Amino acid sequence: MEVIDAIRNRRSIREFEKTDVSDELIEKILDAGRWAPSGNNNQPWRFVVVRQKETLGDLAGQTEYGDIIKNAPICIAVFLDKNSMYESTKDVLAIGACIQNMLLAAHSLNLGSVWLGEILKNKDIVARILKTPENYELMAVIAAGYPTKRERTSGRTPLEKLIYEAK
Amino acid sequence: MEVIDAIRNRRSIREFEKTDVSDELIEKILDAGRWAPSGNNNQPWRFVVVRQKETLGDLAGQTEYGDIIKNAPICIAVFLDKNSMYESTKDVLAIGACIQNMLLAAHSLNLGSVWLGEILKNKDIVARILKTPENYELMAVIAAGYPTKRERTSGRTPLEKLIYEAK
Repeated sequence: MEVIDAIRNRRSIREFEKTDVSDELIEKILDAGRWAPSGNNNQPWRFVVVRQKETLGDLAGQTEYGDIIKNAPICIAVFLDKNSMYESTKDVLAIGACIQNMLLAAHSLNLGSVWLGEILKNKDIVARILKTPENYELMAVIAAGYPTKRERTSGRTPLEKLIYEAK
Repeated sequence: MEVIDAIRNRRSIREFEKTDVSDELIEKILDAGRWAPSGNNNQPWRFVVVRQKETLGDLAGQTEYGDIIKNAPICIAVFLDKNSMYESTKDVLAIGACIQNMLLAAHSLNLGSVWLGEILKNKDIVARILKTPENYELMAVIAAGYPTKRERTSGRTPLEKLIYEAK
């Protein structure tokens, strides 16, 4: 799939087929995340892949969008490793780049995914559920799977409103 | 260009040919940024395109990597619009996704680019140089152009070291 088409046509997918996602595809998605740029190439991202129904259920309880997690065959929890940080804003930007690589890779592999952020309100509970080290801080949960066939629309502000030109 | 190939093969490019970059290509890059996901679809990114040699020179003076900026045909300064924010970490993550879209788009258009972060130490001066509104906070400067032919290498931590599995 062409890069710009993928960027342009990717949408958040919130409903998935029951079909499982192979380890091979998950590895391709994580590998795409791994190739994001980061300041000083510090690569502060860490991943937890969640497949177990019970764990997905526990995560689902931490967000009002729990149905998405509960009905997804797989979730990827993305963490910032605070032991690898060098500057907070730049590290968070790098993790945003890493997440976007994974969403684009999933889309190009004909998978759907959604970036869940509301769950961050319970990030410490999520960390406990996933038994992650103390230096891991939750940045996002990505739910992924084969998309159900649904119309999907999403708009964007026209480009001219985003470009600032000094008077 | 295939998405995963672009993700895998994109590298920071720090030296550019003198050739100019057309407005059409710049617009494609910015448009790719615009299609990034953001929390509540708040699209907090704003762009300033810098082409004037004098302005590039002024920006160059704000970072120890100034030579890259001075010798680039174009830079894109990426800002967070604080009037569009809803949650700081999520907004910065979204801007990271937006920047990555632009780097990938540039790569797929056979341009090279580099994400400059060190200049953030002088973000207020950069904002003054570019005469941006008070609610704009600098997140990164992207320098772009046609790459000179050079060997480019960059490594990544093996995936298995990035995946955490609860014991």
